Amino acid sequence: MGSFQQDRAEIDKHQQSKDSIFFRDGVRRIDFVLSYVEDNDDARKLERRAIFEANLRHVGLELETEDKSESEDGKTYFVKIHAPWEVLATYADVLKIKAPFRADDILENREMPMGWLATPSASQKTSCTRVYYILSRCSYIQDCECDKKGIKRLLNNGTYTAAFPLHDCRYWKSSSYSNCESDRYKLYRYWARFLCFFKEQPINLIRKYYGEKIGLYFAWLGFYTEMLLFAAVVGTICFVYGLLTYEENEWSKEICDKKIGGNIVMCPLCDRKCGYWQLSKICNSTWLNYLVLFMTLFLEFWKRRQARLEYEWDLVDFEEEQQKLQLRPEYESKCSKRKLNVITQLTLIIACIVGVIAYRLAVYAAFASIMKDSPTSHLHVVGPYITPQLATSVTASCINFIIIMILNFMYERVAIWITDLEVPKTHLEYENKLTMKMFLFQFVNYYSSCFYVAFFKGKFVGYPGNYAYFFGSLSKLRNEECDPGGCLIELTTQLVVVMTGKQVWGNIQEALVPWLMNWWGSRKARCHPESLYSRWEQDHDLQPFGQLGLFDEYLEMVIQFGFITLFVASFPLAPLLALINNILEVRVDAWKLTTQFRRPVAAKAHCIGAWEEILNAMAALSVVTNAFIVAFTSDMIPRLVYMYAYQPDGEMNMKGYINNSLSVFNISEFPAESRPEDGENPSWFNGSVTTCRYRDYRYPSGHEKQYFHTMQFWHILAAKLAFIIIMEHVVFMVKFVVARLISDVPSEVRARVKRERYLVQEYLHNYEVEK
Amino acid sequence: MGSFQQDRAEIDKHQQSKDSIFFRDGVRRIDFVLSYVEDNDDARKLERRAIFEANLRHVGLELETEDKSESEDGKTYFVKIHAPWEVLATYADVLKIKAPFRADDILENREMPMGWLATPSASQKTSCTRVYYILSRCSYIQDCECDKKGIKRLLNNGTYTAAFPLHDCRYWKSSSYSNCESDRYKLYRYWARFLCFFKEQPINLIRKYYGEKIGLYFAWLGFYTEMLLFAAVVGTICFVYGLLTYEENEWSKEICDKKIGGNIVMCPLCDRKCGYWQLSKICNSTWLNYLVLFMTLFLEFWKRRQARLEYEWDLVDFEEEQQKLQLRPEYESKCSKRKLNVITQLTLIIACIVGVIAYRLAVYAAFASIMKDSPTSHLHVVGPYITPQLATSVTASCINFIIIMILNFMYERVAIWITDLEVPKTHLEYENKLTMKMFLFQFVNYYSSCFYVAFFKGKFVGYPGNYAYFFGSLSKLRNEECDPGGCLIELTTQLVVVMTGKQVWGNIQEALVPWLMNWWGSRKARCHPESLYSRWEQDHDLQPFGQLGLFDEYLEMVIQFGFITLFVASFPLAPLLALINNILEVRVDAWKLTTQFRRPVAAKAHCIGAWEEILNAMAALSVVTNAFIVAFTSDMIPRLVYMYAYQPDGEMNMKGYINNSLSVFNISEFPAESRPEDGENPSWFNGSVTTCRYRDYRYPSGHEKQYFHTMQFWHILAAKLAFIIIMEHVVFMVKFVVARLISDVPSEVRARVKRERYLVQEYLHNYEVEK
Repeated sequence: MGSFQQDRAEIDKHQQSKDSIFFRDGVRRIDFVLSYVEDNDDARKLERRAIFEANLRHVGLELETEDKSESEDGKTYFVKIHAPWEVLATYADVLKIKAPFRADDILENREMPMGWLATPSASQKTSCTRVYYILSRCSYIQDCECDKKGIKRLLNNGTYTAAFPLHDCRYWKSSSYSNCESDRYKLYRYWARFLCFFKEQPINLIRKYYGEKIGLYFAWLGFYTEMLLFAAVVGTICFVYGLLTYEENEWSKEICDKKIGGNIVMCPLCDRKCGYWQLSKICNSTWLNYLVLFMTLFLEFWKRRQARLEYEWDLVDFEEEQQKLQLRPEYESKCSKRKLNVITQLTLIIACIVGVIAYRLAVYAAFASIMKDSPTSHLHVVGPYITPQLATSVTASCINFIIIMILNFMYERVAIWITDLEVPKTHLEYENKLTMKMFLFQFVNYYSSCFYVAFFKGKFVGYPGNYAYFFGSLSKLRNEECDPGGCLIELTTQLVVVMTGKQVWGNIQEALVPWLMNWWGSRKARCHPESLYSRWEQDHDLQPFGQLGLFDEYLEMVIQFGFITLFVASFPLAPLLALINNILEVRVDAWKLTTQFRRPVAAKAHCIGAWEEILNAMAALSVVTNAFIVAFTSDMIPRLVYMYAYQPDGEMNMKGYINNSLSVFNISEFPAESRPEDGENPSWFNGSVTTCRYRDYRYPSGHEKQYFHTMQFWHILAAKLAFIIIMEHVVFMVKFVVARLISDVPSEVRARVKRERYLVQEYLHNYEVEK
Repeated sequence: MGSFQQDRAEIDKHQQSKDSIFFRDGVRRIDFVLSYVEDNDDARKLERRAIFEANLRHVGLELETEDKSESEDGKTYFVKIHAPWEVLATYADVLKIKAPFRADDILENREMPMGWLATPSASQKTSCTRVYYILSRCSYIQDCECDKKGIKRLLNNGTYTAAFPLHDCRYWKSSSYSNCESDRYKLYRYWARFLCFFKEQPINLIRKYYGEKIGLYFAWLGFYTEMLLFAAVVGTICFVYGLLTYEENEWSKEICDKKIGGNIVMCPLCDRKCGYWQLSKICNSTWLNYLVLFMTLFLEFWKRRQARLEYEWDLVDFEEEQQKLQLRPEYESKCSKRKLNVITQLTLIIACIVGVIAYRLAVYAAFASIMKDSPTSHLHVVGPYITPQLATSVTASCINFIIIMILNFMYERVAIWITDLEVPKTHLEYENKLTMKMFLFQFVNYYSSCFYVAFFKGKFVGYPGNYAYFFGSLSKLRNEECDPGGCLIELTTQLVVVMTGKQVWGNIQEALVPWLMNWWGSRKARCHPESLYSRWEQDHDLQPFGQLGLFDEYLEMVIQFGFITLFVASFPLAPLLALINNILEVRVDAWKLTTQFRRPVAAKAHCIGAWEEILNAMAALSVVTNAFIVAFTSDMIPRLVYMYAYQPDGEMNMKGYINNSLSVFNISEFPAESRPEDGENPSWFNGSVTTCRYRDYRYPSGHEKQYFHTMQFWHILAAKLAFIIIMEHVVFMVKFVVARLISDVPSEVRARVKRERYLVQEYLHNYEVEK
C-alpha cells in the first residue's frame, strides 16, 4: 500500500489546496490526525506503530500517511484517519449516541421523542469522539490480552508525538469546501472576539463544535456573568450612596473637625518606634452592605438552567464514567507502592495551611513595623487624601500579592506531587483528588490574608500598659492594631489589590502564554507561503488542550466567586470588578480556544461536577463570614448601640460617638518597653499631655475598676453576638426556603422528561408484548 | 366454560385441602385473587368484569372462578389467577427484572455479574408484581383507546371488591405442600414474635417475601434501633451521674437548706391569685447533656448501609417511577377544577400552625391559672417529693397530650382534604404532597408545646411591678414564669409525657385495631371447620395493606427521632425510652404485617425517599435547638459565669449562687392589679416582710439605676450568645467534616459497582463490534 500511495501522493499533492481537511482523494474526511517523529534507533516504537495501525485498519478505519519530507520541519510524519459510515454506525450503538431517525426530526420542535434511535449522525464532533474511543481501546502489542493498548499510553511512551482532531477550517476565513461547515470561522467571527462582548453566546454552536463539557462551561460562565450584573448594580448603588452621604456623616465630621478630632491625642500604635498622634489624621469613610441572597438565587437558578441544557442536549440518560474508568498507566507501573492514607494527606494539607498563615503573619507584622517606623514624620508627603495607614496597607497588600503569586506557583507543584504520591487508580480518581487539593491550596493562599485582616487583626490587642503579644510577651511581636476607623478599610484594600491583581494577571497569562508559544512554535512555518502550510501542520503547531484545561478556568472563577461573596460586606464594588473581568474573560477564553488551541476531543458532561458542591459550601461559609464582618470588623453595632442607648441627649444621632468610643489611658502608666522613644513623638507633644486615647470601652485610670471593661462593652458585645445569631439563622432559613421553593428542574422540563420516559416505556411494552 | 367448570368443581372440591394455594388441578399456582359480590341490578359491572377477564385470558393469564356458593358468606365470588411461564418471561423483559442466568449464579459469591440477564425467576414475589402490572394495564371496555383500564379503577368503582396475592401458607403452621416455600410461617416463627426481639432480622427473607420497599423499612428500623442503643447507653450514664451527684450539689443544698432557701421570700408567680412563697419549696435537680453527633453518624452510616442493600438487592439501575406515572382516576374526573396554587397552600398551612400555637398558649395559660389558684394551701397533700409546680406541669402535660391526640385525628383529615383539593395528577404526586402536609401538621402538633416551653415560657416576663402581658396589659394574660430552677424541668415533663404517651398509644393502636377488625370480620368463619375455610377466604378476611401503610410507620419513627434529637439536652433518658419502644415496634410491625394483613404486592424502592431529607433537616435543626436550650433554658451559663467571675471568695464553687441569681423587689411598689389578694398569702407572711425576690439580674430598689439590668446580666447574656455561636459553628463544622469523611457508598460496594459496569460495557462493546 505504502509505495502505491506515495506514487499517488506525488500526483495529487499539489492539486489539493492546503486548506483541505480531506484525504488526497478529496472525499474522505480526516477525523483524527496522529503525528510522530521517526527515531531511527528505536525499533520497538516502529513495531508498535505498525501493529497499532494494522489494528486500526482491521477495525475498519482508513489511514493515510504523509511522508516526513512533506512536513515543514522535514522530520514529522502525519497519519490521517478517516472513519467510514459503517464504523461510526457500530460505535454509535456502543457509545449509545442518539441521533435523529428521520431528517425532519432535527427540527427544534421535539414533541415526539421516539425519533431518536441509534443511527449515526454526520456531526464531526461525535465522529471524532468515536474515533478517539477506538484509538483509546486499540491494542499495540500483537495477540496480547493485557492492558497494553490505547493512544494515551502510546503518547506517554513517545511512540506518537500528538493525536488530535482537525479544526474544520482556518479561523480567519471560511472554508473553501462546500461540504465543510466552517463552524470555527463562525465561532471566531461571532463569538471569540472582544468586540462581540455584548452578544449572547451561541451556546448550541459551541456545544456542536466543542462538545457538551466545554459548552457547559461557557453556559455557566455566561450565566454567572449575567447574574453578576444584578449584584454589581446593587453594589454600585450602595457604594455611590456611601460616597454621597459621606459629607453628612456626623462621625467623619467629628473626626476631621479640628476642634474634636484635633484635640484627641491617640496612644501609639506600636512599641517604642511609634509616637502619639492626633485623631484628625484619619478622615476616611467606611461603608457596609450585604447581598447574600444573590448567591442562593444564582446557585438555584443555575441548577435549573443546567437541567434545561441537560434535557436539550440529550444528556439525561448518559453515564458519565464510561471512558474514565480505565486505569492510568502510571498506576500500573507504580501500584506496588502503598497508598498514602487519608490522614497523611490531611496532615500534609493542614501543615501547609499552618505554614501559610504563620508566614503571612510574620511577613505582615515585619512589614508593618517597618512602614510604621515613623508614620508621622516621613510619610507626610503623600498628600491630604492618603493617610499613612492607607499608604502602608496598600503597599503591604501589593507585596503580599506578589508573595501570593509566588506561593501559588509552588503550591501547584506541591498539589501535583502529593497526588502523584497517592497513585490514584483511574483518571477520574486522579482528577478528583487533584481538584480537591488544588482548590484547598488556592483557597488558603488567596484568602488567608483577608481572613486574618477581617477576623484577627486588631481584635486581641489588650490595652495600653498591658498589650497582648503574639507568642507571649518575650517575642516583642505586639498584636497589630487597626485604624480607629476599624479594620474594614484595610480589609477592603487587601481585597481590591489581591482580587484585581489576580484577575489582571490571570487574563494576561491566559491570553499571552499560548500566543507566545504558538508564535515561537510556528516561527519557521510563517515563512512558507500559505499554500504549503497544510491544515494538519497548522493544527499541530497549536497548543494541546490539556486534561486540566477546563479545571483551571473553573478554579479561577470559583476563587473569584469567593472574593465577591465571602467579603462582600466590606466592599460592595467587588461584584462590579468581577463583572468587568468576566465580560473580558468569556471572550479571552473563547479566543484562546478557537485560535490558539488544537481542537479538543468532544466530551460529555452532565453538570459542572464537584464545583457545584464547592460553590454551595462557599455560599454557606459566606453567610458566616459576612455576619462576623458586620458584627466585629465594621463599626455598625457599636454605633447603633450608642445611638439607641448611650447618646447623652437622648437623640437618635451620632454626636459624641467618637469621644464615647475611645477610652482614656494615663501616659505615666506606660511600661518602659511600650513607651515611645523620645524622637518619635510629634512636635505638638509636650509635658502638658497626660492622657492618651485608645479604641476600647474600659474604665479610665483612677476609677474603682480601672481598665476593666465598662458595662457598655458588654452591652455592645451582647448586641454583636445577637446580631450574628439572628443574621445567620434568618439568612440560612431564607436560603433553605428559597432553595426549596425553586425546584432544581424547571417544571416544564420535568414534565417533558416524564412524558418521554412514559412514551418510551409504552413503546417498549408494546414492542415486547407483541413481538 | 362456566358450566363445565362448575361440574368439575363439584368433583374436585372436597378432594383438595383448603390450605392449597393452587388451582383445582393442584399444579398451577395462584398468583393473584380477585373477589366480587354479585350485584344483580348492575349490568355494567357484569359487562366490565366479562371484558376484563376476557382480556386477561387474551394476554395469556389463566383464570379459575369459585362460585359464590362456595364462600362462607354465600355472596362472594373469587377469581383465582395463574400466570404461566411464558407470560412471566415476556413481562420480565418489560419490567426489566434481572434474574439469575444459571442455577449456580444464585450463590452469594457475585464476582461475575454477567449471569444476570433477563430470564424470569420463579419467585412468587416478582410473579405477583408482574401479574399486578398486567392487571393494572388491562382494559375493561371493548376496543377503547381511552384510559378506561386497570384494576385500580375497577376497585374504585366497585366492580371488584378486592385484589390481592395470596400468602404462601398459614402463619401458624408450615404448608403441607412440598413445592410451596412456607416463608410466611418462617417469618412468623423466627421474626414476627416478641420473644425474638434479641434476634437479628432476616432482612433477605423479608425482602424476598414482601419486596424491597418493605424490606428497606425494616432494615432502616433495625439499624435505627441499633444506633439508638449507643445513644441510650450514653444518655443513661449521664442521667445516673446526675442522680449520684445530686446530693453533693451545692446549688440544690442551698435551695433546700432551711437557713438559706427557707429565708428567701419569693415574689408571687401570677397576678392577685398567687401569694408569696418560700424558695425551699422547690428541691429538685436539673441535668444537662448533649449528644448531637449521634445523629450525624446515624444518618451517614445509614446511607452506607442503604447503598450496600441497594447493591445486594440489585436496585442500582432500577427506575422508580414506572408504575406511579399513571394518572389517578380522581384527577380525570375532577381536572376541570383549577389547581390551588402554592401560595394558597402555604397560607393554609401557616394558618393552621398559628392556630395551633394560639390554642396551645390559651389552654396552657388558662389551665395554669386554675391550677396555680392557690398552690400553697390546696396542694400540700401530694407529699414531700412532688412540688405544686411539678404536679401542675405533669397534669398540664397529660391534658395537653389528650388535646394533641384529638387534634392529630383532625389534622389527618385536614391534610387529606387539602391534598384532595389540589387534585394531584399522578399517584406519585399525590403521595408526595400528602407526605409533606401530614409531616408538617404532625410536626407542629407534637412539638409546638415543647418549643413553647423551651424557648418562650419564662423568657419575657418583665419584673415585679412591671410585668409583661401577652397581647398588651389589658388582656390580663401575664406571661408565664418558670420555676426558679429554670424551665428545663417543665420541658422534661412535657417531653416525657407526650413522647411516652404517643408511643404507648401508637403501639396499642397499631396492634389492636387490625386485630379487632379481623376478629370481627372473620367471626362467622371461625365457626366453620378449618377444612372448609379456604386460603383465599382467610386472606380476604384480613386487612388490606393500604398505599400509605408504610408512610404511617415512617412518620411515627421520624416524630420520635425529633423528640430524642431536638430536646436531648433537656432529657438524656429520651433515647432509652425510644430504644425500648423500637424493640417492641419492630416485632409489632412484623406481627401485624405477617398475621393481620393481606400480602402486599411487592414494590421496589431505592431508598427511604423524602424521609432522609426530613431526617437531615431535623438533625440540623436539633443543633440549633440544643444550643438554645443549653444557653437559655438551662442554668449552665449563669452558673459558670458566677463561678468564674462573681464568686465573692474567688473560689471556683457555687456557694452563694442562689442568692446572687435573685434580685430584690420592694413589696410596697407592687401595683394594685398585681398585688396578691389577702387570703392568698401563707401564714408566715406578715408585715415584717418588705421585700421579695425574683429570678433576674436587676439593681435593687433604691439604687440609682433601680430595676435596670446589672452588668452581670449583660455579662451572662454575652456568654450565652457566645456559647450559642461557638457551639453551633463547631458542631456544624464537625458534622460537615464527618459527613465528608464517611463516604456515602462503602468503597468496596463502589468498586464492585464500577467493576460490574465496566464488565457490562466491555461485554456490550464486544457484542456490538463483533456481531
